[in-house]
Amino acid sequence: MEKQAENLHWIEVCLTPKLFSEIQTKEHYIVVLVDILRATTSICAAFENGVKSILPVATLEEAKELKNQGFLVASEQDGKKLDFADFGNSAFNFSRESIGGQTLVYCTTNGTRALEIAKKAEKIAIGAFINLSALTAWLISQDNNVVVLCSGWKNKFCLEDTIFAGALTEQLLNSGNFVINCDSAVAAVDLWRLAQPDILGYIEKAAHRHRLKKLELDDVIPYSFTLDSTKVVPVYTGGEITNEQIIKSTGTNS
Amino acid sequence: MEKQAENLHWIEVCLTPKLFSEIQTKEHYIVVLVDILRATTSICAAFENGVKSILPVATLEEAKELKNQGFLVASEQDGKKLDFADFGNSAFNFSRESIGGQTLVYCTTNGTRALEIAKKAEKIAIGAFINLSALTAWLISQDNNVVVLCSGWKNKFCLEDTIFAGALTEQLLNSGNFVINCDSAVAAVDLWRLAQPDILGYIEKAAHRHRLKKLELDDVIPYSFTLDSTKVVPVYTGGEITNEQIIKSTGTNS
Repeated sequence: MEKQAENLHWIEVCLTPKLFSEIQTKEHYIVVLVDILRATTSICAAFENGVKSILPVATLEEAKELKNQGFLVASEQDGKKLDFADFGNSAFNFSRESIGGQTLVYCTTNGTRALEIAKKAEKIAIGAFINLSALTAWLISQDNNVVVLCSGWKNKFCLEDTIFAGALTEQLLNSGNFVINCDSAVAAVDLWRLAQPDILGYIEKAAHRHRLKKLELDDVIPYSFTLDSTKVVPVYTGGEITNEQIIKSTGTNS
Repeated sequence: MEKQAENLHWIEVCLTPKLFSEIQTKEHYIVVLVDILRATTSICAAFENGVKSILPVATLEEAKELKNQGFLVASEQDGKKLDFADFGNSAFNFSRESIGGQTLVYCTTNGTRALEIAKKAEKIAIGAFINLSALTAWLISQDNNVVVLCSGWKNKFCLEDTIFAGALTEQLLNSGNFVINCDSAVAAVDLWRLAQPDILGYIEKAAHRHRLKKLELDDVIPYSFTLDSTKVVPVYTGGEITNEQIIKSTGTNS
């Protein structure tokens, strides 16, 4: 059932936020924001544990102000929860008891900057290995072009976000609804295929993985590279992130 | 003969010029400028054919002015030689008869911008597959850190420059004098290892390769991906590029 080329959507992989201005099109598209270690994995984990919505904020001042208004706040510096906050930013902080049914303020300078960079997108979805297939199914249902925006590390290329971009690209290509026309997508898929047989082994090579180890924050790594532990699809619109999960399996997310 | 870590130099791979500002160090380093299709391959070819020096210029105005002063000029637009120029920018234009012993003005907007971006480097060397091992030997002789600056395509990541960065990184690592600490170098080496068994087959996936095919400029591709056809090491200092080739083999360039 090959589709006509004109009916296909394109996937573009943006290896760091700094390269987003170079995406080739003025057309409509959805952005998938990726920060495997750790923001987008943590956000998916929070929705898996029943958070109602997440308000991303860029600064400590905003986070403190919202804390004073009675919101739950996740905020950390160098991996340590800040005193005024309820949680750090790790996926393991968000238990169902603590966040179920609530709105969470999530303080992330880089994440908020990426949301700002991607604001021309029709929607911005949150991608992680833990929601890979659910996200794929949702993207197919959206019938739109896709830009995978890797957060990277301090604007630099990072392996973990790139191999996720490759995994997502491969799944979307397998659906038959998408094409790629940028070298970064080709490279991401190739790196993902190299990594796939032993993701945790491969990711040992990643610089950020070692940074986390030094900070003793690497407990979350096996969880962050486990595929499809959740069906949530967090989507950012109008200043907040909510879950657009497809309740019933569409049969296309394998 | 393992060296102490403190005696090792680092290699950083910068996947596009736009990411150069993110390189991690304020230390001293040499930049290797890479634009496999086609500027850096063409510049190596010109030195292989005996050009004395190359003056890179950014604009047609500068190129025309220098042409009026009697210089030989290479300048093209969309792959077509411009009327006022003596040559286009293809490696195949520079025969020994036409350029031997002469100074060549080479008009390249992207190349000149990259030289400007890299101006804090102690030296800027010109890298291509055709001078890979000679460049490696020269870099080892320089006893300095190395930043591989990929030109990319319109500031975007491109496969051909990245796999060259991987090839050079692998050779430098094999010397035992270097370490890597950035994910882009890890990815470049992995992509190079994927590509190496059949470089031309691999590069079929590259978008720019198809752009050249459309422009009927792909005749130079097999030449551009042939390893070590020359021992020249073009180096940019003080506004011009000259050849710092190591005349005798040092025995380290294998």
